[in-house]
Amino acid sequence: MNKEDYFIKQFSHSKFIGDDGAIVGSYVYSADAFFENVHFKREWMSLKEIAQKAMLVNISDAIAMNAKPKYALLTVAIPKSYTHKELDELALGFKKTAQKFGIEIIGGDTICNEKLDISVTIISKSKRPVLRSGMKKGDLLCYTGELGQSLKHLNALLKGEKIPKKSKFIKPKLNAKFFYEIASYVSAGMDISDGLFFELERLSKANTLGFEFFSSIPNEIGCSGEEYELLFSFAPQYQKKIEKIAHKHNIKLTIVAKAVKGSYECKCKGHHFE
Amino acid sequence: MNKEDYFIKQFSHSKFIGDDGAIVGSYVYSADAFFENVHFKREWMSLKEIAQKAMLVNISDAIAMNAKPKYALLTVAIPKSYTHKELDELALGFKKTAQKFGIEIIGGDTICNEKLDISVTIISKSKRPVLRSGMKKGDLLCYTGELGQSLKHLNALLKGEKIPKKSKFIKPKLNAKFFYEIASYVSAGMDISDGLFFELERLSKANTLGFEFFSSIPNEIGCSGEEYELLFSFAPQYQKKIEKIAHKHNIKLTIVAKAVKGSYECKCKGHHFE
Repeated sequence: MNKEDYFIKQFSHSKFIGDDGAIVGSYVYSADAFFENVHFKREWMSLKEIAQKAMLVNISDAIAMNAKPKYALLTVAIPKSYTHKELDELALGFKKTAQKFGIEIIGGDTICNEKLDISVTIISKSKRPVLRSGMKKGDLLCYTGELGQSLKHLNALLKGEKIPKKSKFIKPKLNAKFFYEIASYVSAGMDISDGLFFELERLSKANTLGFEFFSSIPNEIGCSGEEYELLFSFAPQYQKKIEKIAHKHNIKLTIVAKAVKGSYECKCKGHHFE
Repeated sequence: MNKEDYFIKQFSHSKFIGDDGAIVGSYVYSADAFFENVHFKREWMSLKEIAQKAMLVNISDAIAMNAKPKYALLTVAIPKSYTHKELDELALGFKKTAQKFGIEIIGGDTICNEKLDISVTIISKSKRPVLRSGMKKGDLLCYTGELGQSLKHLNALLKGEKIPKKSKFIKPKLNAKFFYEIASYVSAGMDISDGLFFELERLSKANTLGFEFFSSIPNEIGCSGEEYELLFSFAPQYQKKIEKIAHKHNIKLTIVAKAVKGSYECKCKGHHFE
């Protein structure tokens, strides 16, 4: 077990832990860190893009639970050397992204640090949260969009190469409207932050089920993290409805597997610390 | 203006910003960072004490708003070198403190980082939050406990000296029960995290009032941060009631000033980055 999972396990007696967000009444709470030299390098993105991605990866958790993000708390550790212009750019990234999703930034903490380390808490509302559990035997497993670009672009950045400004690695593309519309047909769901195979393992554990794949998925697709596409399951009778809604929103769907008895284990090389 | 205040000012149009926590309906949200080499050095405290203090400084915000902490989200960035035993100790500090205050840890994020950086979001409930605003001309200003120890002990630690295990710098002493009992008599309040003089300046700004001091307060008292004592104002007719409740809880009260027309500016050397 890697050390992150070991640490998290100390808290896993809580009924709240283990989903993209914690549900308390009609509220959903999620918190994610976005740290320099852990999640990004300063030269990869502008400060506006960094703030934007820190927000988007958190908003993605809310959407994947069929929750509407309402409020955000930001904890921002900022290097002393940053100029007022740089602070403006960073603040703008937070504000613009919040505005786009109708989120109000209600508080947080700002401190001086060696590097730029951001933690975001998103407070969302949902009448019917979509959980990681709820998948039934025979349900179909499906993801949105194309997978693989984030890993490809991460590798390019690590080699010092340039990547397109429109890369999903820079600006995750969230499919909020689509998911809210199909949510009532979905049995379980989550966003793909650690890679399709990782998330499938999580779904497998949360539902004590395995998968029968319809075709083999290469590692370049299945191990690509930070995609922030949606992975979800549904009963076969909803397939047509969901495909129709996807078509309306111009979203590609790939049905990858069927839930079956058994279990599934991800074989990607871990990107978490051991 | 220091850079922290400059950055925070970018968000100050929000009606939620500017108090110890943000009020949304009957919930109060507060988030605070507790970062290695910013708020503490690893050799100053055990991992259990570090987790405990990270929780307590956040719980202190909730108490100062007359809110009962209910849930916590933890974002914990942990050095790769930490052993399972060290992770256990850290987790125990969070869990024990949460338990003591009836808080459920409902989620967060764990990542690998160069140093131990903790961000805590506390979700509290309050029927009648105490704000920084609400102080009236003629109100008396009062703080709990003794001030000065935290600055003295911080300076000792910075010189490489030992400090007592029971120091408030290691384990802030929160006066929850006392404050909940007097809250309905309080016109404005906050906790003393950046020093009495700093907090008085905040109260001055939030209420457009100044202070007439009853005696001169030395800088060793007024500039001592991380005290987590309570600073609050009340109308003179409640003085006897409040003193009686303080006596019951064995809490020392010091009435320092009266709110008057004017404004007040803190003269301590800033400990925030310029």
